[in-house]
Amino acid sequence: MHDTLLLFGATGDLAARQLFPSLMHLLRDQLLPPEFRIVAVARQPHDNDAFHAWLAEHLPADERDPDSLAELLRRIDYVHVDLSDPTAIAPALASVASRRCVSYLATPPYLFVPIAQGLKRAGLLEDPCRLVLEKPIGSDLESARAINAALGACLTEDRIFRIDHYLGKAAVQNLLALRFGNTLLEAVWHHRWIESVDILVAETAGVDGRESYYADYGALRDMVQNHVMQLLCLIAMEPPASLDADVLRDEKLKVLRALRPYRADNVSIDTVRGRYEAGLVDGAPVRGFSLQSVQGREPVETFVALRASIDNWRWAGVPFRLCTGKRLAERVTQVVVTFRPTSHWLFEKPRRERAMPNRLVLRLQPQENVELELMSSLAGPEWGALELQSLPLDLSIEPAITRRIAYERLLLDALNGNSTLFVRSDEVEASWTWIDSIIAAWREVEAPILPYIAGSWGPAAAAAFLPQAPTRTGGVQRERRGA
Amino acid sequence: MHDTLLLFGATGDLAARQLFPSLMHLLRDQLLPPEFRIVAVARQPHDNDAFHAWLAEHLPADERDPDSLAELLRRIDYVHVDLSDPTAIAPALASVASRRCVSYLATPPYLFVPIAQGLKRAGLLEDPCRLVLEKPIGSDLESARAINAALGACLTEDRIFRIDHYLGKAAVQNLLALRFGNTLLEAVWHHRWIESVDILVAETAGVDGRESYYADYGALRDMVQNHVMQLLCLIAMEPPASLDADVLRDEKLKVLRALRPYRADNVSIDTVRGRYEAGLVDGAPVRGFSLQSVQGREPVETFVALRASIDNWRWAGVPFRLCTGKRLAERVTQVVVTFRPTSHWLFEKPRRERAMPNRLVLRLQPQENVELELMSSLAGPEWGALELQSLPLDLSIEPAITRRIAYERLLLDALNGNSTLFVRSDEVEASWTWIDSIIAAWREVEAPILPYIAGSWGPAAAAAFLPQAPTRTGGVQRERRGA
Repeated sequence: MHDTLLLFGATGDLAARQLFPSLMHLLRDQLLPPEFRIVAVARQPHDNDAFHAWLAEHLPADERDPDSLAELLRRIDYVHVDLSDPTAIAPALASVASRRCVSYLATPPYLFVPIAQGLKRAGLLEDPCRLVLEKPIGSDLESARAINAALGACLTEDRIFRIDHYLGKAAVQNLLALRFGNTLLEAVWHHRWIESVDILVAETAGVDGRESYYADYGALRDMVQNHVMQLLCLIAMEPPASLDADVLRDEKLKVLRALRPYRADNVSIDTVRGRYEAGLVDGAPVRGFSLQSVQGREPVETFVALRASIDNWRWAGVPFRLCTGKRLAERVTQVVVTFRPTSHWLFEKPRRERAMPNRLVLRLQPQENVELELMSSLAGPEWGALELQSLPLDLSIEPAITRRIAYERLLLDALNGNSTLFVRSDEVEASWTWIDSIIAAWREVEAPILPYIAGSWGPAAAAAFLPQAPTRTGGVQRERRGA
Repeated sequence: MHDTLLLFGATGDLAARQLFPSLMHLLRDQLLPPEFRIVAVARQPHDNDAFHAWLAEHLPADERDPDSLAELLRRIDYVHVDLSDPTAIAPALASVASRRCVSYLATPPYLFVPIAQGLKRAGLLEDPCRLVLEKPIGSDLESARAINAALGACLTEDRIFRIDHYLGKAAVQNLLALRFGNTLLEAVWHHRWIESVDILVAETAGVDGRESYYADYGALRDMVQNHVMQLLCLIAMEPPASLDADVLRDEKLKVLRALRPYRADNVSIDTVRGRYEAGLVDGAPVRGFSLQSVQGREPVETFVALRASIDNWRWAGVPFRLCTGKRLAERVTQVVVTFRPTSHWLFEKPRRERAMPNRLVLRLQPQENVELELMSSLAGPEWGALELQSLPLDLSIEPAITRRIAYERLLLDALNGNSTLFVRSDEVEASWTWIDSIIAAWREVEAPILPYIAGSWGPAAAAAFLPQAPTRTGGVQRERRGA
């Protein structure tokens, strides 16, 4: 395992909320080498003590156990430098002795290339050094290619770890275990038996404070290009021959390349764009998405729903409904695989049109779990009273396992050099190719951005994309087939 | 619903332990008509009061709630008559006014035909009257045909209800609900995905006190011909077009007719017979099966294990291992459907040879439930530590539903005229045809009856038929593939 982590953007929100707490847990659980060191890098002119004090104050309130904190702080050296200047970075890091280091860029994307170039000058990207990047990689295919090419000039692809933190979640790992560890799922993972796949990433938060960044992206580029498409890949990929990083990512890539591109003739039917207006979220009034900051720029959506098709032998005819939005009714991330109805229905209760199809539900927010829904008998007093009811089965071995933050797993994997759960450059570019087809088609047909009230489930036109919108009661309003 | 039950053998063990308690529960739950009457018939010369007193004393200790008992007793009239004399039965029942009556024969099998003939004379088998019979129907094909023919001369087949009380169990109903209500099971219920089916009916009880009866039957005819083969039918039958009694029973019949008959050349390989000798059961010494009472008669087995084959398109090549015995290590009745391993195994932990196959486990004794076993992820701290473990999922909606005695459900069905869960004459005869092939082959090769120690899992030669013998700890020793 590598023994040194260079954390760029150490004074940022991600570092304070996720990365330092994850490191604290890994140290507490003795999962890092005894000699493990952290070099915290940012532009603020702190010294070590000042940074330690800043960090102690900015960790989440429930992450300030004194012993754990002391153990973390004693391993941190702080370095301040202008991150946009490669020539400044190299001398600032001259003191980093280890050559088994991992540089983690928790910074705005425009700094990725300058920092990588600075690290290269400092000799800190020589094999076996690694580089970890947060999303987004570019904002379209062209810019992503430019970033990947510039990074490729600094170190080899096998040492570049592009994080999508959804892939670090325990429930996502369990999805892979379930799909490939069970004959029952192997047998049915096919258009013959699967009716549809729904991926929903719904936020109650708005864009407030991030308008300027967001106006360059919108929901499609901010959420679909990475998280949603990665989930789609794990659901749709062919079984890989092994779990080796490139073998698995080859299969994900094939899915991305089999996604049917959008054109003017289907984009109006198969997509909905929306932007939230003032409304109520959790009972409190909220503002609409500010158009002020985006004046003079192409307007973007805060909600998008897509009906995607994967044109291959496994998925022919199966709709993948993808939906994400801000200021929606509930904070929920879930993937629902709905199986086809049984070929014939024997039972009086429920009647066929009320029978629930089997479903596999992967929940990532607000809680993580995986459930399989089967129909079971209520076993009334007589045979004639036989009544079937949907029975949710929790496929998670124990809820406690989900407590580990996704970043812990991904940090460990990066330090261990296991890139299975990281995104390869060709995946990023294939994702952008498809996303760009949507944006081009929207431009061509001048697709409207429909208003929706904050706290709702998006524009009315998107209802058909949301057959499985969760409800506040924790249940799920399910599509009633035929009703 | 019919409003009169004639219960023959009212002073017998089955009546006191199962039938009267079931009737008491049905009355308590108001599931019977307000005018419901019971005519209790037996040869003991009780009057009503004496029978009521006898019954109150012989009900199970936990079935003597005074209100429920009073409600039951006030509906019972007692009639005593020689049950073997048809000419005596008719006048004895002259006072039965209702023509919507169900006669239940909880008597030794040799009385079935005389009682039916007596009922016919009394006019109590005219449409819509019904007749309910307990097993066994004969002891081979010839005797079963004779009984069925004699009954057929008294009333039509659609009004003859042959009980197999296993079919009244909630878990068995749930098996039908699960098989035909779920796409996930529809998809895999096939030799392509199922590796084997094991049906085990293990008793700790011995034959003590029933030697004379038992010596005419043995384990094969006493348990396999009815209970085990009925369970096999429900697992193996093609999906019926409806749950109508004859439609469902047609499918069961097809399974019975597709069972590969035994011959001299396979009976030694595919069957094991055993007879228990003295040993320990639950820590107490017990005698061996007494050979005294069977002197001069063909010796019978108290244990039998069969490897059955169903020669049709769905089940080609799938072994059905059937096993039942007395004085075994544990009292357990279960059906285990073991699915094939996944086509390829990706995971390091467990290694392929230790991976558990998916299984559907239907337990009938000592508790009823249905479990599906899937492999799920333990979600270690890093991807490389991903470890899969078998996860048992309870498919029963609530344990409480199993508290209803199987006989309650079957009594209600008989009173309502729903014969779906009863056995038709041609099923009985097809079962005997197959059973007779085994006995004939045993005779031909002079198959040995191997001794086994009471409290063990049967003769050592049967181990290969018991890959899934339960253990006393409640867990299950599973077949380790390849180990």
